[in-house]
Amino acid sequence: MSVTVADVGERALIARLRARVGPPPAWVPVGIGDDAAVVRPARGALDVVTSDALIEGVHFRLAWTSPRDVGYKALAVSLSDLAAMGATPRAALLNLALPADLPLAVFDGLVEGFTGLAESVRAPLVGGNIARTPGPLALDCTALGSVRPRRTLTRAGARPGDRLYVTGALGAAAAGLALLSAGADRSTLGSAERDCIERYERPEARLRCGGIVGRSRSATACMDLSDGLADAARQVAEASGAGLIIDAGAVPIHPGVESWATRSGTAPLPVALGGGEDYELLFAVAPRQIRRFLAGVRHCKGLAVTSVGRVCSEVAGAWLERAGELEPLAGGFTHF
Amino acid sequence: MSVTVADVGERALIARLRARVGPPPAWVPVGIGDDAAVVRPARGALDVVTSDALIEGVHFRLAWTSPRDVGYKALAVSLSDLAAMGATPRAALLNLALPADLPLAVFDGLVEGFTGLAESVRAPLVGGNIARTPGPLALDCTALGSVRPRRTLTRAGARPGDRLYVTGALGAAAAGLALLSAGADRSTLGSAERDCIERYERPEARLRCGGIVGRSRSATACMDLSDGLADAARQVAEASGAGLIIDAGAVPIHPGVESWATRSGTAPLPVALGGGEDYELLFAVAPRQIRRFLAGVRHCKGLAVTSVGRVCSEVAGAWLERAGELEPLAGGFTHF
Repeated sequence: MSVTVADVGERALIARLRARVGPPPAWVPVGIGDDAAVVRPARGALDVVTSDALIEGVHFRLAWTSPRDVGYKALAVSLSDLAAMGATPRAALLNLALPADLPLAVFDGLVEGFTGLAESVRAPLVGGNIARTPGPLALDCTALGSVRPRRTLTRAGARPGDRLYVTGALGAAAAGLALLSAGADRSTLGSAERDCIERYERPEARLRCGGIVGRSRSATACMDLSDGLADAARQVAEASGAGLIIDAGAVPIHPGVESWATRSGTAPLPVALGGGEDYELLFAVAPRQIRRFLAGVRHCKGLAVTSVGRVCSEVAGAWLERAGELEPLAGGFTHF
Repeated sequence: MSVTVADVGERALIARLRARVGPPPAWVPVGIGDDAAVVRPARGALDVVTSDALIEGVHFRLAWTSPRDVGYKALAVSLSDLAAMGATPRAALLNLALPADLPLAVFDGLVEGFTGLAESVRAPLVGGNIARTPGPLALDCTALGSVRPRRTLTRAGARPGDRLYVTGALGAAAAGLALLSAGADRSTLGSAERDCIERYERPEARLRCGGIVGRSRSATACMDLSDGLADAARQVAEASGAGLIIDAGAVPIHPGVESWATRSGTAPLPVALGGGEDYELLFAVAPRQIRRFLAGVRHCKGLAVTSVGRVCSEVAGAWLERAGELEPLAGGFTHF
């Protein structure tokens, strides 16, 4: 029998967690271990705050994904929200709901994955909570960031005539999840499909890209692709009161999606459009800002940015244009 | 069959929630409905941030407590953390993990309780997340507040010679929970015991008191009694590197605890010392600041403040003094 979290007790868990967290940086006068954390706002900046949950059996399975990657991802999804606002991370909080029989080694892995990413983006873990649960393991993360006024990216600013861009290649996380669900043996997969699994397990928040675009004020709207491009297009359309048209031939599809789809007899485009958890960014850019926008994102080394469509006033909502015809874009993942 | 959250779907749930939240105040340039919320920090102030979870079957039971009170309490416990730092609330986030068969009326009640309290303390709901869970209903709340530098109350400043004070009367929430667990019929209870249940279900964060004491800089340390006075004394002792001695005869015991304990053959003092969820405040106050401290808390109408002990250098940790003898203070509630 392995040692469980119940065996060591709540205080020992908190002590283990605190041992993983270094001394707080200068902008955190009171870190972990008081009633609440105190964080000095960045000078002249606004606070940006977001929170998200990962629940076992819904958002991840420990049978497929290592505790370390789950801990990493719990923070990464909130960092992606900061990236989509053009914000810089500043601090993070983690609420853990732990089944009593959770192995201590899993707890340690979760904490290691979370704090490792927190350190690397300079968003120290400053607080949170540990509770017992009769249900599945759950991680609730809150990320606090900062952004200068007028450099904030929102969903609401897209205007007819804007071009649409996405970062990266889409569908990877959905294909990675499908591969894991099907019990794929990673050692037998090609590198493109292995990369899909990696992208599902360790998504990279596009903080640098969001920050650069926010600072250059070259985008009118931005949203992350947590629930897929189709969903993001619908939400930006709704928030901006405009129509978004995605060009079917322009969507950048991850090569692992192409090869997985070919093998499994699936069409790759719906995966790239509807698959969630890519955590890439969708931008709307006014024509006169395109040069500035592209010059900015060129500083995000290794990150492709692709023109995928346009904003218009003739239709409302999100549409796919294929062979000159418009069809409604089917929505992304919803929880119920 | 009643309508469930799964029947209406995630988007409709979010729409219902947004309908309960008014337009954001001036200090919230981007409220609910974007990738993240944007909150303007209070001028010249620090951010204070805390998060907490309420899980059904661990922290509450819908069989005993109304959804509205559960929603209220999810925010109240985080507000209590802000109060203990001397902070003023500014915004709140709520992550809901919902079983698919949760009645829609329960969802509405949770949201109503949460947003009602949020409005009354001017901490608008600015974000969060709704997810399906195969496990129990859970509410994770993050509260964001502000405090001026050097007006922050922490656990770490208690010094030998300081006096200890608590607000309110203790043990009420523990007795209330015991009454609910025993299936007590509220209509047959006396008003003091009914008040215990009320204090368990709708704790009042001591925001005004914490704020006044913080502004007057008359306390050296503060902590809320979320896990009971004994636990708070231990934690303040540890954080401050001093000994805390509670005078057994001075602990203010809620009258409902006295009457419930008498009926059930329990000693009331251990309930008042060890019972969690009172959400009162423990202060350490230097002798030369006592007059100033008491003058400040006098502005919190209807809130008693009682001298319950002292800080010393002769012993470490938390102790109970009874008839001139010191005995170690037993710890409070822990989760594992």
